Amino acid sequence: MAVGHFPFPKMPAVGGVRLAAACAGIKSTDRNDLVLLELAEGSSVAGVFTRNAYCAAPVVIAKEHLRSTFASGSKHYWLINAGNANACTGERGMDDARSTCAEVARLAGVSPTQVLPFSTGVIGESLPVDKMLAVLPQAFGDLADGSWEAAARAIMTTDTRPKAATVQFEHEGVTVTVNGMAKGSGMIKPDMATMLAYVMTDAKVAQPLLDKLLRSAVERSFNRITVDGDTSTNDACMLAATGRAPLPEIIEPSGVLYAKLYNAVVAVHIQLAQAVITDGEGATKFVTVAVEGGANRRECLAVAYTVAESPLVKTALFASDPNWGRTVMAIGRAGIEELDVNRVKVYLGDVLIVERGGRADSYTEEQGQQVMARDAITIRIDLGRGSSAERVWTTDLSHDYVTINAEYRT
Amino acid sequence: MAVGHFPFPKMPAVGGVRLAAACAGIKSTDRNDLVLLELAEGSSVAGVFTRNAYCAAPVVIAKEHLRSTFASGSKHYWLINAGNANACTGERGMDDARSTCAEVARLAGVSPTQVLPFSTGVIGESLPVDKMLAVLPQAFGDLADGSWEAAARAIMTTDTRPKAATVQFEHEGVTVTVNGMAKGSGMIKPDMATMLAYVMTDAKVAQPLLDKLLRSAVERSFNRITVDGDTSTNDACMLAATGRAPLPEIIEPSGVLYAKLYNAVVAVHIQLAQAVITDGEGATKFVTVAVEGGANRRECLAVAYTVAESPLVKTALFASDPNWGRTVMAIGRAGIEELDVNRVKVYLGDVLIVERGGRADSYTEEQGQQVMARDAITIRIDLGRGSSAERVWTTDLSHDYVTINAEYRT
Repeated sequence: MAVGHFPFPKMPAVGGVRLAAACAGIKSTDRNDLVLLELAEGSSVAGVFTRNAYCAAPVVIAKEHLRSTFASGSKHYWLINAGNANACTGERGMDDARSTCAEVARLAGVSPTQVLPFSTGVIGESLPVDKMLAVLPQAFGDLADGSWEAAARAIMTTDTRPKAATVQFEHEGVTVTVNGMAKGSGMIKPDMATMLAYVMTDAKVAQPLLDKLLRSAVERSFNRITVDGDTSTNDACMLAATGRAPLPEIIEPSGVLYAKLYNAVVAVHIQLAQAVITDGEGATKFVTVAVEGGANRRECLAVAYTVAESPLVKTALFASDPNWGRTVMAIGRAGIEELDVNRVKVYLGDVLIVERGGRADSYTEEQGQQVMARDAITIRIDLGRGSSAERVWTTDLSHDYVTINAEYRT
Repeated sequence: MAVGHFPFPKMPAVGGVRLAAACAGIKSTDRNDLVLLELAEGSSVAGVFTRNAYCAAPVVIAKEHLRSTFASGSKHYWLINAGNANACTGERGMDDARSTCAEVARLAGVSPTQVLPFSTGVIGESLPVDKMLAVLPQAFGDLADGSWEAAARAIMTTDTRPKAATVQFEHEGVTVTVNGMAKGSGMIKPDMATMLAYVMTDAKVAQPLLDKLLRSAVERSFNRITVDGDTSTNDACMLAATGRAPLPEIIEPSGVLYAKLYNAVVAVHIQLAQAVITDGEGATKFVTVAVEGGANRRECLAVAYTVAESPLVKTALFASDPNWGRTVMAIGRAGIEELDVNRVKVYLGDVLIVERGGRADSYTEEQGQQVMARDAITIRIDLGRGSSAERVWTTDLSHDYVTINAEYRT
C-alpha cells in the first residue's frame, strides 16, 4: 500500500557521480540488492547517522572512515546493500563491514577509509560477504552516471516504490544539480538521519559547511517524519558535493550561490522524506501534523509527535473517521506543563473542530468527513500560548501495517 | 479477542457496599450501562485520576466532591455510566455531571458532594442526562450486596469480558474482604490511574492512610500497564474502606493488620490491571516486559515502555515471531545515556537470546519460537549497569486492534 502515484523522476546526471546496481542474492536472487556509488576526486562528503544505542556495524565503520577520509583527494565510494542490516552482529559484523570496504578499495586502488558501507534489512543475521564480494567487479564495470532508478530500486526493503528527487538551479550561467535517493518504509522515526538517504550535488562546498548544510536540511526533513515511532539501527543520510560544476568553492553560509544551493538541498531532502511517508508501511494517508502557538519548538514537537504516533489517532485516520476526541486525548497526554485546554484550537484541514475545550459550535461531522476522505490530511493545532511552530509528517495505521510487520521474516 | 479464559470470580459481599446495574439506553437499549454504588456511613474513600490535560467533566467534579466529601458521616455514592465519556464537552459537560450527582443526592437524602460521577465511552458528545435520571429510582430500588457481575458488565465499553477480583484474609478471627472491579481495553496507558477501577474493603482505614495505600497499589499495578500508550481523558481508580469488619481503625502504615490489608489491596489491583491487559483491544498475547540491572527505576521504566509500545515489537509478538532485532532496536532508542550494549542481555522467557551486542551463541530460533507460541510471554532485559528493576504488562498489536479502532464509531 502507498499513498498517491508518483512516477520516478527523470534524473539528470550529477558531474562526478557514477552508480551501479547489482544482484548479490542476499535475500533472493531475483532482484538487485547492492549499489556501488563513486564520487570523483576532490568531493566533500558529510553524513548523519542513527542515535540508536544498538547502531549497526556499517554505521560504526562509516563514521570511523568518514573522520579520516578526506586527507587524500582520491575517489570515494559508498557500498550499499539491502536485505541484511548487519546490525547486532557483534565483532563479526564489524569484520564483515571492513572486509567489503577493503575489497572495494582494492579494486579501486584507494585506501579502505575512502569506502563507506551501508546496510539495510533484517537485524541480527550475518552479512553474506562472499556473495557481495563476488559481484563487485561487475558493479565496477557497470558504473555509469544514469543508473539512478536501478540504484534507488536496489536499496529497497519493504518499500513499494523507489524514491528519488532532483532539483536544478542556474547560477551565473551554470546549471547546478542536486540529486537524491532514499529508502525507508517502516521502523521510521529518524533521529539525526533517516533509514538510508543519499544526496549529491556538483556544486563545490567546503566540508565543514557541507556538514552544517546537511544537518540543517535533515532537521527540516527526515527528522520530522514518523511512521511508527521506531528508530532504526541503520539510519544514515549522506550528502556529497563533487565540485564538478565550474563555480567557486562555497566556504561560508552566505551569498546568493549558497542560498540557492541551500534551498535546492532542503527541497530534495523534504521530497525524499515525504516519499518515505507516502510509502510508509501500510500507508493509506499522508498526514501533516502542524502545531503552532507553542511556547517553544520543543513543546510543539512533543504535541506533534504524540498525535502523529497515537495508535488511536492513526486507526481513526485509516478509517477516515473524524474522531477528534482521540486527537485532543493525544494533545492532553503530551506532557505539556499547565496546558490551558480552553485556549487550544484544533483544525482538520481548514475546518475548526475544537475550541474552548470541546467541539466547535460551527463544526459539523460532514465537514470533518469531507476532509478525512482525502489522501492528504493536515491536522493543525494552535496551542494558544506562544509563537513557536513545528510540523511532522506521518501515516495512518492500517491492516496492511500489521500484515507487513507480522509477516516480514516469514 | 482476548487472551486466555478467565471465569468471573465468585465475589463475596463487602459489608457496607451495595450495588445496582441499570439500562439507561445511552448507546443502545439492549444492555446495562449505568451502575449505582453505595458506601455505608463512615466509609473512607480515596481516588486517583487521569493526568491528561483534557480531563473529562466527571473527573473534575469527582475530584472536587472528593475534597469536601468526608466532613459528614453520611452515606456516599458512585454513579458510573458507560457509552459516553462526557469528555471535551465544555461547561455543558460540567453542568451535566453536576445534575446527575444532584439527583442521586436528592433521592438518597445526602449532600451532592457525597456523590462522585464517573463516565466512560465516546469523547466529545453530550451526556444524555435525562435517560440517566429516569432510571435512578429503579437503581436505588435494586441496590444489593451481590450485584458484582452485573455491575462489572455494565461499565464495559470495548471490553469483551467483565473484570473483577477478590481477596480475603483473616485477622484475629475476623474475615476481611477486598473486592474490585475495572473496565478498560483500549486507550490504556494509565498515568496515576486506569480507565475505571473500583476497589472496596470492609476494613476500617483512616482517609489519609487510605490515600497512601491507593497510590502505592496503583503504582504497582495500573501504572505499569500499556495497551497502546494512549492515556484516557477519564481514568479513575477509587478505593473505599467501609469499616464494617469488627476490627480497629488502621491509622498508621505499620502492624500486622495493615500488612495483610496492603497485600490484599495490591493483589486485587494487580489482578484487575492484568485483566485489562488480557482483554486489551485485539490482544492475543499477555506480555510482561521485565527490566533489571538498571541504574535507576526511571531508566528501567523507559526501556520497558519503549519495548512494550513499539509497534514493530508488538506486531512480531502477534506473529509469534522471535524477531529479537526489533527488541534491541527498541532498547537502543529508549534514550538511555551511555548505554553499553555489550553489557545488555535479553531473555525470552528463560532463553538467553542477546548478549555482547548480538545473538547469544547458545540461542536457536527453535528455542525462541517455543516461547513465542505461548499465550503469556516474558521479555526480560538485563541492562547490566545497576540494581534497579521495573516491569510493565502489555499486549501485542493485531489486526483486531486495527479493526476495533477503525470501526469504533461506525
